[in-house]
Amino acid sequence: MSYNTFGHLFRVTTWGESHGPAIGCVIDGCPPLIPLTEQDIQPFLNRRRPGQSIFTTQRQEMDQVRILSGVFEGKTTGTPISLMIENTDQRSRDYAEIATAYRPGHADITYDMKYGIRDYRGGGRSSARETACRVAAGAVARKILGTDVQIRGALVQLGSYAIDRTRWDWDNVHHNAFFAPDAHIVTEWENYLLAIRKAGSSVGAVIEIHAEGVPAGLGAPIYGKLDADLAAALMGINAVKGVEIGDGFETATLTGPENADALSMENGKINFHSNHAGGVLGGISTGQPIVVRFAVKPTSSMLIPVASVTREGKEIEVTTKGRHDPCVGIRAVPVGEAMVACVLVDHLLRHRGQMGHM
Amino acid sequence: MSYNTFGHLFRVTTWGESHGPAIGCVIDGCPPLIPLTEQDIQPFLNRRRPGQSIFTTQRQEMDQVRILSGVFEGKTTGTPISLMIENTDQRSRDYAEIATAYRPGHADITYDMKYGIRDYRGGGRSSARETACRVAAGAVARKILGTDVQIRGALVQLGSYAIDRTRWDWDNVHHNAFFAPDAHIVTEWENYLLAIRKAGSSVGAVIEIHAEGVPAGLGAPIYGKLDADLAAALMGINAVKGVEIGDGFETATLTGPENADALSMENGKINFHSNHAGGVLGGISTGQPIVVRFAVKPTSSMLIPVASVTREGKEIEVTTKGRHDPCVGIRAVPVGEAMVACVLVDHLLRHRGQMGHM
Amino acid sequence: MSYNTFGHLFRVTTWGESHGPAIGCVIDGCPPLIPLTEQDIQPFLNRRRPGQSIFTTQRQEMDQVRILSGVFEGKTTGTPISLMIENTDQRSRDYAEIATAYRPGHADITYDMKYGIRDYRGGGRSSARETACRVAAGAVARKILGTDVQIRGALVQLGSYAIDRTRWDWDNVHHNAFFAPDAHIVTEWENYLLAIRKAGSSVGAVIEIHAEGVPAGLGAPIYGKLDADLAAALMGINAVKGVEIGDGFETATLTGPENADALSMENGKINFHSNHAGGVLGGISTGQPIVVRFAVKPTSSMLIPVASVTREGKEIEVTTKGRHDPCVGIRAVPVGEAMVACVLVDHLLRHRGQMGHM
Amino acid sequence: MSYNTFGHLFRVTTWGESHGPAIGCVIDGCPPLIPLTEQDIQPFLNRRRPGQSIFTTQRQEMDQVRILSGVFEGKTTGTPISLMIENTDQRSRDYAEIATAYRPGHADITYDMKYGIRDYRGGGRSSARETACRVAAGAVARKILGTDVQIRGALVQLGSYAIDRTRWDWDNVHHNAFFAPDAHIVTEWENYLLAIRKAGSSVGAVIEIHAEGVPAGLGAPIYGKLDADLAAALMGINAVKGVEIGDGFETATLTGPENADALSMENGKINFHSNHAGGVLGGISTGQPIVVRFAVKPTSSMLIPVASVTREGKEIEVTTKGRHDPCVGIRAVPVGEAMVACVLVDHLLRHRGQMGHM
Repeated sequence: MSYNTFGHLFRVTTWGESHGPAIGCVIDGCPPLIPLTEQDIQPFLNRRRPGQSIFTTQRQEMDQVRILSGVFEGKTTGTPISLMIENTDQRSRDYAEIATAYRPGHADITYDMKYGIRDYRGGGRSSARETACRVAAGAVARKILGTDVQIRGALVQLGSYAIDRTRWDWDNVHHNAFFAPDAHIVTEWENYLLAIRKAGSSVGAVIEIHAEGVPAGLGAPIYGKLDADLAAALMGINAVKGVEIGDGFETATLTGPENADALSMENGKINFHSNHAGGVLGGISTGQPIVVRFAVKPTSSMLIPVASVTREGKEIEVTTKGRHDPCVGIRAVPVGEAMVACVLVDHLLRHRGQMGHM
Repeated sequence: MSYNTFGHLFRVTTWGESHGPAIGCVIDGCPPLIPLTEQDIQPFLNRRRPGQSIFTTQRQEMDQVRILSGVFEGKTTGTPISLMIENTDQRSRDYAEIATAYRPGHADITYDMKYGIRDYRGGGRSSARETACRVAAGAVARKILGTDVQIRGALVQLGSYAIDRTRWDWDNVHHNAFFAPDAHIVTEWENYLLAIRKAGSSVGAVIEIHAEGVPAGLGAPIYGKLDADLAAALMGINAVKGVEIGDGFETATLTGPENADALSMENGKINFHSNHAGGVLGGISTGQPIVVRFAVKPTSSMLIPVASVTREGKEIEVTTKGRHDPCVGIRAVPVGEAMVACVLVDHLLRHRGQMGHM
Repeated sequence: MSYNTFGHLFRVTTWGESHGPAIGCVIDGCPPLIPLTEQDIQPFLNRRRPGQSIFTTQRQEMDQVRILSGVFEGKTTGTPISLMIENTDQRSRDYAEIATAYRPGHADITYDMKYGIRDYRGGGRSSARETACRVAAGAVARKILGTDVQIRGALVQLGSYAIDRTRWDWDNVHHNAFFAPDAHIVTEWENYLLAIRKAGSSVGAVIEIHAEGVPAGLGAPIYGKLDADLAAALMGINAVKGVEIGDGFETATLTGPENADALSMENGKINFHSNHAGGVLGGISTGQPIVVRFAVKPTSSMLIPVASVTREGKEIEVTTKGRHDPCVGIRAVPVGEAMVACVLVDHLLRHRGQMGHM
Repeated sequence: MSYNTFGHLFRVTTWGESHGPAIGCVIDGCPPLIPLTEQDIQPFLNRRRPGQSIFTTQRQEMDQVRILSGVFEGKTTGTPISLMIENTDQRSRDYAEIATAYRPGHADITYDMKYGIRDYRGGGRSSARETACRVAAGAVARKILGTDVQIRGALVQLGSYAIDRTRWDWDNVHHNAFFAPDAHIVTEWENYLLAIRKAGSSVGAVIEIHAEGVPAGLGAPIYGKLDADLAAALMGINAVKGVEIGDGFETATLTGPENADALSMENGKINFHSNHAGGVLGGISTGQPIVVRFAVKPTSSMLIPVASVTREGKEIEVTTKGRHDPCVGIRAVPVGEAMVACVLVDHLLRHRGQMGHM
C-alpha cells in the first residue's frame, strides 16, 4: 500500500504540510556504505527552491535539509534515513479566504470531499511544497546510482511556445530561470511569462527528462514495468496531466517501420539506430537513454477571479492572494528528475534482488 | 511488490505465456456475496478476442474462461478467484525464426537482456495475449462497481486520422470493428488499415476511456493518487507510450482561467462548469466523469523487413510471419476499460478502508 | 497487502477450495534459469499427501502437480510459475451436516462471521488441503536456495509425549509415519494415536524445523526481521497456536550469561559456542542453524460430539463424519519446512536487492 | 515491502538511532477527524519510559513527543502523522568499548555481518529505544479503535517465577514496577531482580496481552491471518523469542474435546463456553478476548563478562558498562500492547476495505 510512500525496495515516505512546523521524508532500503552528507542533498533543493526569480513564487524558504538518522560517520548504514526541512516563511493569513472557498482546478475541494477536513493553509498537504521531499530523496537516489547514470531535465514548452530541439544544449539549462535547453527561446518566454504574471494569470508547461547510462534489464513485467512506474511517478507530481515516453503520443501516427528502432552490431555490441522507444521495450530498459515528458497544467492559484463555491455552499468569486508560481511547471524540472532517479534506484534494487547480480 | 500483480486491496495476479497450455489470473480481495458466473466475464473476453475482423490477428482463440475457485453457489466468497483460459490455437512453428532474431521495437531483446532466457513462442509472457486476463479481471471489477458506474472506451485516433468529436455517439462503438464513436470515420479507417495490412505494415492509435458515476473522494494522495495509478495501469498495457487525463498535454498551452473548472451550486449540489481536469483533482476523484487517453504504438511484428541482430550477434533482416494485428490499438479498447475498472475498484476498497463508509 | 499472497520478492499466491475442481498457486519473482520440472516438486507433495498411513486422513488425493507457466525448456524464465493440483477425491456428502452447524474450534464460524458466506465442503478455503500449495512453493524455493541450504523438520512432541532429544537422528525421520527423529518413541506414539483415533478424538503436536547453511545477514530490521517473518509464516499454518525460535519460551527463565552465545575465533572465522538464539540476532541471521518450533492444536473435526450452534442459531451437538487427521500436526512437518524455505528465499532476494551481492 | 514499516492500511514507519538527534515515526493511513493531541500519546510513552524504577535502565529520557504533521485544529486530517521524540540523555562514551567488541547475544554482530557498518552508540538502530515509536503509534491506534476496545498487558513470568493466575487483578498492574497483575508476587520479584541487578546479570520474562471488545471478523486468511500478523508484530519486538495465542504451546498436549470451545446460544447471541483459541479461529477474530503471550530473553548488555571477539577478529571478554535494564521484559509490556493495537487497527481498516461496513 502506498498512500504517502513510493517505491518498493528503495522506499520514500513523505510527510508534512505547507504551513506546519516542518516537512520531511523517511528513506528506507538505502544500501549501506554510501557516502552521504547534507551537502549532497542541498544543491538539488536549492534548484527547486522558490523565490529565486520573478517567475516563481516569492515565498522565501531556505529549504535547509537536516539528516536525522541512517547516516553514521558520513556513510549510510542501511537503516532509515530521516530528512527534515523546517518551514520558515509561512504567511498563513494569505489563506484566510480559501479556508472556506474552493479554488477551481485545485485540490481544495477534493480533500474536503474525501477527508471532510483539510489544512487549508497554503494548500496543506496538497501544496507543491511537498515536492521538496521528493527532490531530497532524489538526491540520495543519485548517490546510489553513481556518476555513470546521468539524469537531467529541461523545460521544453511553456504555454504554446515550444523550444527548437535542434538548438538543444544541456549547458543552457543552468543559465536561465526556466531550465530551458534552447538559449534562443529565453527572451520569448520571459516576455510571455511576465505578461502572464502581470495579468495575475498562470500557464502550463512541458518538461522532458533524460536518464543516460541506465543499465539494460531494469523493469519488472508485467505489472512492475519501468515505464509504468515512471508514468505513475511523474503523473503523481502536483498538476501533471500527461506523461509520455520516447515518441509518446506521436507513435499513434507512426507505422511499424517508422517506429521500429533497427539494430546492428557495433564493436561486438548491439547498437540501436534510433530511440523511438525512449529506452524501454516491454517495460524493461534497453540501455539507451530513457526519455520521458510530462505536461503540467497552469497553477490554479491566481489573482484572476473564477466562479466558485464555499464549503457551506455559497457561490462566490475566488482569487488567491498568496504568493504563487505563474508557471509551476518551471520548478517541476528538478522534481521530475528526482522522481526518475528514485524509480531507477528502486528498479535497480528490485532487479538485482531477483537476478542476483549488478 | 508487484511484478505480476496489480492493485492493493483488489489484487490481480496474472500468469501464462502465449503458447503455453493456458493463461490465467488470481483475483484476491474481492468482496464476498457478489453474484458471479462465467457468463459475467465471457462477453468482455469476446470483445477483446482476436480473429473477429480482418483488422485484428487471425489467431483463433475462443478464450473460454473457467472459474476454478472463490465462487460458491453463484456468489463470491471473499477468497481468491482463480480464472483460467486455455490456449487452443498455438502455431509455434510461426516463431521458429524469432527464436533467435530480435524484432526491432519488440520486448524480445529486453527479456533476453534481463532474464537471459525467454519463451519466444508468440512473444511468450510479453504477448498481448496476457491482456485477456486483464479483461477477465475487469469484468469482475465491474460487478463490484455495480451498474451506477459506467466504463466505456473508444478508439479516437488511428494513425493520423482522428475522429470528429462533435459526432461522438457511444452507440456507434458497438457497430464497427474499430470501437469508433464517430460513424463517419469508419470507412476512412477501413481503407487506411486495409492498405497498411496489405503492405505488411502496422500503425498506432489513441484510445479514450470514460468512467461515469465514479463517487467523489477516490484516490490516496500523495503517492496513491487516482490519476497516478490510472497512468501506471494504462502505461503498463502492451505497446502504450503515452497517457493523459482530462485535457492532458493540451493543458500545457492553457492559462489558469482557461483551465479552471468553475463551480456553482445547482439544486444544493456543487456543479462543475467544465471538466478540463478529467475528473481528478489533487489525485482524488471529483465525481465528474473520469476521462483518460492513451497512445498505442504500431505493432512491431510485421511482414516488412527491418534490420536487426540475432541472440548470437549476427546482423539479419527480420520479418514476422505469425498472425498479428495491423493495429493492436483496436483490441486495446476493452483492455483499457478493464484496467480502469480494476483501478477504480481498488481505490474504492482502499477509500472505504481508511474512511469507513461507502 | 497480503490476503492470499506471502512473500515480497519471492511471492506466492495460493487459491482454491478443498472441494472445488483444483487448488493451485502462482509463484512470482523466481529468478530465471533455475532448472525446474514437476519431478522437483512432486516428492515434497508426496510427503504431505494424505492417506499414507492410518495416522492421517484417509482421503485419497494423488496431488499431482502441473506446471502451467514460467518454465521453458526445463528452466524458469523469471515470469510467474503457475502450479495446479486437481482435486480428485471429493466426498462432499460428508459435509452435509456442517453446512449449517459450526464445528467448535474450527474456522467455520469465523468465515461466516467475516464473509457471510463460505464454501463449507471440506472446510472450503480453510481446509488444510491449501497447504499442498505451500509445499509446492517450498519445493521451488529449495531449488533457488540450492543444496548448500538444508531445511529439515521433525515431530518433537505428540500430545504430552516429547522425544528424547539425545536420541535425535535425522535419518529416523524418513522411517516412520510421524517424522519422528527419535526411533524409540515411535511405538509409544503409535499406540497413543491409535487410541486417540479409535476414540474418534484428536490431539496436538509440536514440530521443529532446522535450516542449516543459511548465510549470515538475512533479515531486514526493524519490521522485516527474519524471525518475525518466520513467526508469521508458521503461525499462519492451519491450527498453529505458538511459535518460538532458539530457546524460545525457555529464555524467559534464563539469565543473561546463560542465554549469551559466547564467541571465539576458529581458523580465522567467528565461532559461536552455542545457539540459544536459534540462528537469529536482532532479526538477522547469524550463519548458525536456524531452529524454530511451532505448536499445532488438535484437529477440531472429530467423531466425539461437542456442543455447538447452527447458522440459524439452534443449539446442537456436532460430530464430523468426514475423513480427518487424528493429529494434523504430523502432516504439518513438510508444510513447516516449506514455509521456512519460502521465507528464506524471500529474504535472500531482499537482502541482495539492498546489498547488491550474493 | 517492510523494512522499517509495519501495517498495510494503517502503516507505521519508524526511524532513528539510540544516540542520534531524535527518533520518530510516520503514521500513514490514519482515518481523518480523529481528535488527537500530544496529550493522547504522552501517557503511553511515560509508561514505557526508562528510569522510573531501579528495575529499568537509569537513562533519563523525557520522551516528549511532538506532532509535526497530519493534525489540524486538534483532529487528524487523513494525511501522514509525523511524530518526533528528541534524544536528550545520550552518554555515548559508555559505548567506546562495544564500538569494536560484539556483545554475545546482541544484534551488534549481525548488523555488521549484514551492513558492514553500524552506529554502535547505544545499539544504534537495534536499541530498545526504537520501541518508543511503537508505543507512540499504538497510542494513535487506540484513538481509532475507540474506547470499546480495551488492550491491556501484564508481566506474567519473571525468570522462573510465574504469577498465580487465580490472583489476576488488572488494577494491580498500575501499582507496581513490574506491571504484575498478581500483587502477591511483587515482593518476590523485587528481591529476585535486585539480586540479578546486583550481580550485574539480567533475566527473561513472559508478557501477556489481552484485547477485549475486538469485533468478530478481523483477519484476512490465508496469508493475512490476524494471529499470524500478531505473531510477527510481537516476535519483531527486541529480544522476543516466542509468541503464542490462546492456549499456545499447551494445545499440543490437548485432545480435540479439551481444546474445542463449545458454543451455545445466549439471548440470541452465540456464546463461547471457553477461549482456548485466544479469540482467533482460522485467522479471523471470534469476538472473544484476544489473548497473546510472548517471551523476552534476558538483556545481552550485562556487567558479567562473556567471551567474545572484536570486529578485527581478536578474542576478548566483553562487559557492557552502559545503563541497561536487568529485565528488558518489563518495559516490553506497553510495547506489546502498542503492537497489538496497531495490528488490530490495520486489520479493522483492511476488513472494512473488503467488506464495506464497520
